[in-house]
Order: sequence, then C-alpha cells, then structure tokens
Amino acid sequence: MPTYKAPVADMLFVLHDVLSLGTGAVPGYEDLDRDTTAAILGEAAKLAQEVLAPLNRTGDRQGCVLDKGMVRTPDGFRAAFDQLRAGGWPALDCDPAYGGQGLPYLLATAVGEMFSSANMAFNMYQGLTHGACSAIHAHGTEAQKALYLPRLVRCDWTGTMNLTEPQCGTDLGLMRTRADPQADGSYRITGQKIFISAGDHDLAENVVHLVLAKIPGGPEGTRGVSLFIVPKFLPDAEGRPGARNALSVGKLEEKMGIHGNATCVMDYDGATGFLLGEAHKGMRAMFTMMNEARIGVGLQGYAQAAVASQAAVAYARERLQGRAPRGAANLQGAADPLIVHPDIRRLLMDQKSFVEGARAFTFWGAQLIDEAERLPDPAAQGLVSLLTPVIKGFLTDRGFDATVAAQQVFGGHGYIEDSGMPQFVRDARIAMIYEGTNGVQALDLVSRKLGAEGGRPIRALFDRIDRLVVPQIGQDAAWDAEFLIPLQTATADLRAAALFFLDHAATAPEEVLAGSTDFLHLAGHVGLGYMWLRMAQAAREALAAGRGDPEFLTAKLATGRYYMARQLPLTRAHLARIKSGASPVMALDATAF
Amino acid sequence: MPTYKAPVADMLFVLHDVLSLGTGAVPGYEDLDRDTTAAILGEAAKLAQEVLAPLNRTGDRQGCVLDKGMVRTPDGFRAAFDQLRAGGWPALDCDPAYGGQGLPYLLATAVGEMFSSANMAFNMYQGLTHGACSAIHAHGTEAQKALYLPRLVRCDWTGTMNLTEPQCGTDLGLMRTRADPQADGSYRITGQKIFISAGDHDLAENVVHLVLAKIPGGPEGTRGVSLFIVPKFLPDAEGRPGARNALSVGKLEEKMGIHGNATCVMDYDGATGFLLGEAHKGMRAMFTMMNEARIGVGLQGYAQAAVASQAAVAYARERLQGRAPRGAANLQGAADPLIVHPDIRRLLMDQKSFVEGARAFTFWGAQLIDEAERLPDPAAQGLVSLLTPVIKGFLTDRGFDATVAAQQVFGGHGYIEDSGMPQFVRDARIAMIYEGTNGVQALDLVSRKLGAEGGRPIRALFDRIDRLVVPQIGQDAAWDAEFLIPLQTATADLRAAALFFLDHAATAPEEVLAGSTDFLHLAGHVGLGYMWLRMAQAAREALAAGRGDPEFLTAKLATGRYYMARQLPLTRAHLARIKSGASPVMALDATAF
Repeated sequence: MPTYKAPVADMLFVLHDVLSLGTGAVPGYEDLDRDTTAAILGEAAKLAQEVLAPLNRTGDRQGCVLDKGMVRTPDGFRAAFDQLRAGGWPALDCDPAYGGQGLPYLLATAVGEMFSSANMAFNMYQGLTHGACSAIHAHGTEAQKALYLPRLVRCDWTGTMNLTEPQCGTDLGLMRTRADPQADGSYRITGQKIFISAGDHDLAENVVHLVLAKIPGGPEGTRGVSLFIVPKFLPDAEGRPGARNALSVGKLEEKMGIHGNATCVMDYDGATGFLLGEAHKGMRAMFTMMNEARIGVGLQGYAQAAVASQAAVAYARERLQGRAPRGAANLQGAADPLIVHPDIRRLLMDQKSFVEGARAFTFWGAQLIDEAERLPDPAAQGLVSLLTPVIKGFLTDRGFDATVAAQQVFGGHGYIEDSGMPQFVRDARIAMIYEGTNGVQALDLVSRKLGAEGGRPIRALFDRIDRLVVPQIGQDAAWDAEFLIPLQTATADLRAAALFFLDHAATAPEEVLAGSTDFLHLAGHVGLGYMWLRMAQAAREALAAGRGDPEFLTAKLATGRYYMARQLPLTRAHLARIKSGASPVMALDATAF
Repeated sequence: MPTYKAPVADMLFVLHDVLSLGTGAVPGYEDLDRDTTAAILGEAAKLAQEVLAPLNRTGDRQGCVLDKGMVRTPDGFRAAFDQLRAGGWPALDCDPAYGGQGLPYLLATAVGEMFSSANMAFNMYQGLTHGACSAIHAHGTEAQKALYLPRLVRCDWTGTMNLTEPQCGTDLGLMRTRADPQADGSYRITGQKIFISAGDHDLAENVVHLVLAKIPGGPEGTRGVSLFIVPKFLPDAEGRPGARNALSVGKLEEKMGIHGNATCVMDYDGATGFLLGEAHKGMRAMFTMMNEARIGVGLQGYAQAAVASQAAVAYARERLQGRAPRGAANLQGAADPLIVHPDIRRLLMDQKSFVEGARAFTFWGAQLIDEAERLPDPAAQGLVSLLTPVIKGFLTDRGFDATVAAQQVFGGHGYIEDSGMPQFVRDARIAMIYEGTNGVQALDLVSRKLGAEGGRPIRALFDRIDRLVVPQIGQDAAWDAEFLIPLQTATADLRAAALFFLDHAATAPEEVLAGSTDFLHLAGHVGLGYMWLRMAQAAREALAAGRGDPEFLTAKLATGRYYMARQLPLTRAHLARIKSGASPVMALDATAF
C-alpha cells in the first residue's frame, strides 16, 4: 500500500523563495516567516501522513453506505474528521470574526494539497464546507452569517453545493427545482438534485445544503435562478440542530472512484429553505463557491499525481529488472532497479516536472486571490479569473495523465487494486469532470475570460512574462537556451493563438470554440513554463548566494530544464490545431458519426 | 447501458477498398469477395451484439470467483462460450489440417475487433487459446500437434501463457520456476507464476498452460529458459482429460478492470510438463505467441475506444444542453443536443479519426502477417516486425486516451458505473501494460526493430509512403494541403528521428532510449496518417467512379482531413523531444526524486 510523505521542503521553496511569503504588502503574509510556515506545514503533514493517508484505501474499499436513510462513512473517517476539526484545520484561512484563523488562502492551499494527496475523498467533506462558508460570507445577511459561519468554520456542520439535476448539468437554465415563497419569508424547496458530494454523512451534526432553485414567476433560464440555504436539521433558537427538514437521500451513486465520499441523489420534498443573497441572482452567489471550488479541483488533479508519483519513485528504486544501458548499476544484485532505465526516468520526470510546476502555478493563483481580497487589487482579480479555468482544466487533464504514468511504472502490479495505484487513477478521473467539465473550463476561458476587460488580464500575463524574460536575454547562452527562449517561444504561440481568436471572436465563434481546449492547454504550458522559470531563477540565485540545500536546488534546475525541453514543444502543436480552425472539427453532419 | 453496433461497413471498406481483399496473390484471399466477407462479418456482428455485449457489464460486476480451487466465470459466460464454439469462430484462421477454416488472419482480426469491443474480458479466453495454438503449431512435435491442436482450435480446451513470476516480469532471466527432467521424457514443473489470464475457468474441459521454466544446469539468464506444455488434466490415451495435474490456482487477483477474465496466481507443485520445441530455446517459442498477442492487444486498445465512442455519440445526440454557437439547432426543445458544441465535436472527432485510422493500421498489419506466412514474403515479415510494437504501444496509449475522451462526453454521468463508461476505461487500461508494457514496446522498437536487417524495414516503410505521396504532389492544391503535405511533413520528422537514433545508437544508447516512447508515438502518427491517406484516396476514387455510398465516403474524407490537420502536428513535438536527447531525462540522481 502506498504511503504519503508531504512535500514540505518543496512547498516552503515555492511559498518563500518563489512567492516571497513573509514579505510584501499582503495582509496576513507578514507574520509568516519560514519557521512559522514550516511549523504549520509540519503539523498538517503529520495529520496527512499518519491519519488521512492510511484511511485512503479503506475509504475506497468500504465506500459509503446508505442505511435507513442515513449515510455511513467508512471506518475511521469519523475519528479522523474529529482530529481535523480539533486541529482547527478547516478554519485556517477563515474570517476571524467567525472563528477563523485569518491566515492566507495561499497557506490553506498548501495544506489542502497535503490533505487531498493523502485522502481526496475524505478531504472533500471539509472542502465543500469551505465553499459554502465563502458563499454565505459573501452573500448572507448578518443573521445568516452569525448563525451558520461559526459552525461551518469549525466543521461542526458541513456544507454542500446543489446545482445538477437529472436533466441539467452545465446548462442550469433547464433547472426544475422550485422554491415557493412562504408567509414567514422562507421558501419551500421541491425537486431533485443529483451528484451531491458529501450530501449526507455521519461526520457532523448538521449538513447545510446550498441549493439552486427557481422562484415561480421569475425570469426564464439562468436569470431566474436563486440560491437557498437548506439545512438538514433546521436550527433552533439557540442555533442547535432542531427539526428534521423535508429532504432525504434518494440514492448513493456507485462511482468509478472517490468511494469514501458520499455522492447523493438529494430529494427535496417541500423542504424549508432560506434565500441567500438576492432573488434571481443565485448564479452570481453560486459562482463565489464555484471559482474557489475550481481552484480546489485543479489542486486535486495534481495532488493525486503527487502521491501516485511518490509511489512510482519508490517502486522504481526497489524493483529489479534488466540492466542499465551504460552498464550494470547494481553489481551485487541479479538486476538493476527500474529507475536506471531511460524510459522509466521519462515517466518519472514527466510526473515530477508536472507536479512541481502545477504546485507553483496553483500556489500563485492562490496568492493572486489573497492579493485580490486582502489588498484589494483588481488586476490580481482579473488575472486569477483568467487563470482559474486553466488551473482547473489543465491541471486535472495533465494530473490524470501523470497519475496514469505513475501507475504505468508498476507494470502489471499497478493494475492490481492492492497496489493502491488504480485508486489514484480512478479518484483523479473525477477532477476532469466535476465543477464544470474541462470542456466547460475551456469554453469559459476563450469565450469569457480571454476578452474580459478588453483583454486586460491576458495582456497582464504577457507583461509579467516579458518583464521576467526580456531583461535577462543575452547574458548567459545556456540560460537562454534552456529557459528563456523556450518560454519566449511558447508565449509567442499563446499570443498568436489569442490573436487568432480575437480576429474570429465576433464573426466566427466556432473558430474560437473548436480550439478552446487546445488554447487551455497552450495557456497551461505557458503558465507552468513561467512558474518553472521563476523556480529556476530562485534556485539559481539561492545557489549563487550559498543559501539552501544545493542538491535540492540543483534538482529544481534540472527538473525545470526537463519541462522546458520536453513539455513546452507541445505549444506549437496546440497552435497548429487552433489555426486549422473549425472546419475539420465541424465538417461532419451529426448523423455521419 | 451502452449497446454495441459492429462497424461492418467500415470494416468492409478497409478490407476491400483499401486492402483489396479478394484480389491479389495471397492464398486464402481470392475466395473472399465482398459478399462473402460481408456474410461472415454479419454473423460475427450478431454474436458480438446480441450475445457478448449484453454480458459485458455482468462480467464486470460479478467478476470471477475462486471457489474450492475452481474458478467460476460470471453468469452467462459459459453459454456464450458454447455459442462462440458452435459458430466455429475460434477456428476461423486456423490450419485446416487441425480443424481450422484456413481463412486469413486479416479476417480473424476483423472478427476479433468485434468480439473485443463487445466484451474484452470474455474474448480473452479464446484469444489466448489462439496464441497457444500458434506456438504449438510452430514448435510442437507431430504428436503434440495431433493431440492438442484440434482441441484448442475448437476451444474445447483453452490455452494460457505463463511468463511472469512475482520477482520477474519483463526481465525473464530472473525466472525461478524449475523443470526437472524425468525418466519418461517429461518434466516436473515447480514454481509460481502470476498474472495468468484465463488461468482457470469453467468454460472448457481442460486448460493447456504454456509455461516458461528453467531446466537445472542450463545456461544463465533468458538463454536457459524452456517452454513446456502443462495441461490442467493430463490427456489419457484417447486424448481425453485424465488425471488432475499438480497445479492449482493460488489466488484470483482483484484488478482495476477485465473482471470477467480470471487473472490467476498459478502454483506448480511438481506438475507434469512436456517440452515444447527445443530445450533452452523457450524464449523463441514464446515469442511466436507474443508477437501475435501484441497485435491482439493493440486491437483491444482501439476496440474499447470504438465501443466507448459509439456510446459517446449516442449520448451527444440525445442529451440536451446549451445552444449551438451558430444559433439554436433544436428550436422546439429547451436546449440543443451536445453534439452541436465544437468542443464536444472535437472529442468525438478525436475518437472517430483515431479508431478508424487504428483499425486500418491494424488490419494492414494483419495483412502483412498473411503475406509473410502465406506467400511467404520476408519483406512483409520485416515490416510487420517493425510495426508490431507500434500497433501495440501506440494504439493502446491512444486508445486509452480516446476511451477517456468518450467517457468525458458524458460529464458527471460518465463517472457513474451504471453508465458503463468507467468499465471501458478500466478495461482499456490493461492493454497499455500487458504483453510487455508500452515502454517495453518502445524499447523493442528502437533497440531491435529499427536497426534490424540494417534498417531495411523502416526504409521499406518510407519507400511505401514516398511511392504513394510523391507522384501525386502538385496535381490538386487542396489534396496537397489537406493530405499529402501533412503526411510528408510527419514522415520527414520520423526520418529525422530515425537518423538521430542511427547517429547515436552505437556510442550513446541513452540518447536513443530516452526518446523511445516519443519515437513510437511519432511512428504511430505516421502510420495512421499513411492509412488515412490510403483510405482518403480509396474514398475519393470510389466517389469519382460513382461506387459506394457517397455520404459514407464523404465522411471518410472529412475524418481523414481531421486526422491530418489535428493529429499529425504532434510529430514535430515528438521530434523536438527526441532531439533534446538524454540529458534532460537522465540529469537527476536516482536519490533526487
């Protein structure tokens, strides 16, 4: 069974050496010197390694059980959730006014990666709660905030998002769930919601459902959708769980993975709900949860690759098979370990260069969210809005590939469930789908985010890259060839793709949409390339200054070189596809498939 | 639950319009006119659609059960196997001297695709038997052939391959299973074999294990490995299953997929075995099975994509979500079907262009095997040896991707096991691993096949492409741009990669090995591009001559254009990676991961 070792040193490098946590103007950052961060991450690592990771396989094998209308989570989940709560982990970045610790979202993201690597299905219970907190914090009345937030911040109660219905997923305008206004200002919610993660369980005393529904007589389509707070137990006057609300779990879905998380069909039979935010403005409120959730899902994508990759490295070091091409490396053994073989190295370097790049990219996104919220900085807001679909879509697509690559290192043993590798693959698969499929992320990117504010965010991204690259060029031929030119070339491909889209957006939307996923991947490679240059530069400077562990820093540089040499050439192929336009994609009649 | 519709029209097009079955010099081809082939494929389609496909999900859910030392297959498998046998399908291309029908391997390949799409786990029982037949046919004594072949050809008995042991997979030199010679000329086989597909079951009256083992005192490593026939029941004087041999199923593996096939740990406790072929020449005999098995596995890779893709198309036509970018397509409905969306089209066209290209490529490989065996043609033998690892590795890697893409079309519903889509993905995953991982295929390609016969096979491939492309260039600008130039460009990339390897093979093997998988994919794209040009040309000629269904032929051309425009640009990225050499791949110390 795979074990998990939290990558604390890698995280500290990104947080402090690359993103300069502990310095700068962001409120909440200034107290976080390296020792403080290390202490927090070290505690989180213990919980992840010693409590959550050992439950991962149990969660997969046992799954959740629906028994007399109640969901029972796998053995050990309840005790682990108590430990999570006791450590105050769910409150890390929450508002101190409601019991939170007020630490940066950036730090919560680092901790979230560990918990997600250790046990993705388990961590979703608190992850969704965090999203519900954010939505109520942003859109709730003072009374709603006072009632729900302290309980959600502590995870005494947990939260859910209820969007999907059998006939409607992405297209929420097709929604049928109804919210009938009552004399006391509440609403009666009637309808069925599906795919509700953490929809019910035995880990907390109450479940607070945030439910999208239509108030009769409102506008058509998504403009008529409102958001409601629908608790499983209606809070009494003291805010304790009181009467059972008229909602029930219709079914637990049998899924490909994340078996430890209860994916519920939720039936609302005239349940009492309370409007959250304005009537008919539910989509906006829901997007407060959604954007955060999308970054969280991007994180899941690479977090599974991270833990799977650790297992692959361990196996490659241990398993003896064949001899190294440059001569036997393990003379006393009957064979050499797998890791001597170049094609195994390729698999491992693909994983390593992706995971470390993805971590830096996600952490940067989290930092932009902190800057947007805590400074506040509208430019940071625009940039992270642009990057959110890239973080979600690119990191989950490539994270799945990297998890499959980790499984591949095991040969036949990786296909056996006891190895733990199939679970990583099966769990990682959902991240490409939920919170908006990756196709929807690509659509969001090219049809909303790319042209937002007249294109200011994408120009801001290009400016940041140019400001980093251009002044350095021509000083060191190796540095130019290994880092600067590859990133500049890839960025030029992204610019060309953006221009192609701007030329066609108004007149030929299909030309844009046919290349949307390629654009998302192109942007993802540029994003990871940019972060690799930043990491390489930080490593190089630390080495020159004699700071840090030279082996660690040298490995960073080597891993960065790999990403530049072996991944960035893909941008050219993505651009070629984009430029081939809509006609190859749309040529066939729907009947001709 | 997905249904399956065998692609008979597509197969007939490849067999007759592209590969000219029914004409030419290959013995066994001349009687197969289009009507005869259509009749045979039509019968196979019925069995696949009506009997095998409906059992696919049952096989996945029930799996196999080890009960009192005997393996029980899922409900319905036994009756289906009887029907398979009664139809004579396992005997299709076998030697008439032993009860076979003597039809081409090409035709058996087409039928095999249908059976594999319909129920991959089920079809493996006969697939492995076919491999055992081939090995005994090639290496057995007359007595062995007379005893085993008629029974295996009919699938009254089935076969297995026993290579892997707990400590050795790819590196068979580490093998420990022992074969002690007995006075009567037989051997006593002692050891444990793992991952034995179809190792035991209730579908046939006997199981004939082909087991690799070492005769004590023989040479070290793989040069000391011999192959043995080890039947579950020792045949009596009349060739009926007699005394139980000293072998048993130690365990059934719990796997990620192909649950309907029994993957056994086999324990040999002094079991009676009979030498097959020469002592210490077991590897050669095993490779007779292995090459055939590798093409069969490549076929599995795209066969799962084929059936998953059918389900994705059906879902995309039916599921309503959003509106077409060029204006509503389904005015009377609340939304348009998914298939109007360009990014959904991209997913479907990726699948379609891959599956049809893969089918043509595999069928061409099967035709080369027929030419090599029936003419015999050593050039065909060399070419198919070169292509075998490409068929196995490229088609299973990309087939898995295409199956994942099909699942993606379903959104959240694709993650639910009842949709059937997770099973396709879980089943397809094994094809990248077994019969030699895809990394081993890449190694075989660059270190053995590329330089074989002084490079004659790869030159023969280039010659065939040049002879097809060069004379046509300059006659039709659209044809040039859409088909000829993209293939010529991709082929130039493959040539450059081959030259790079030839330059480095002797002096710097790591330079070659670090790019092996990229070379395999580069070759795969060129292979599919070549087949797409052949298909497009056949379609164009048929259209010009007024032959065939114009809609079908027009769709072929459009699908070919898609492959050329959207897949072939990847060859440049593969070449760039190859040329980046070994240093990015091998830079890190094994301890630095």
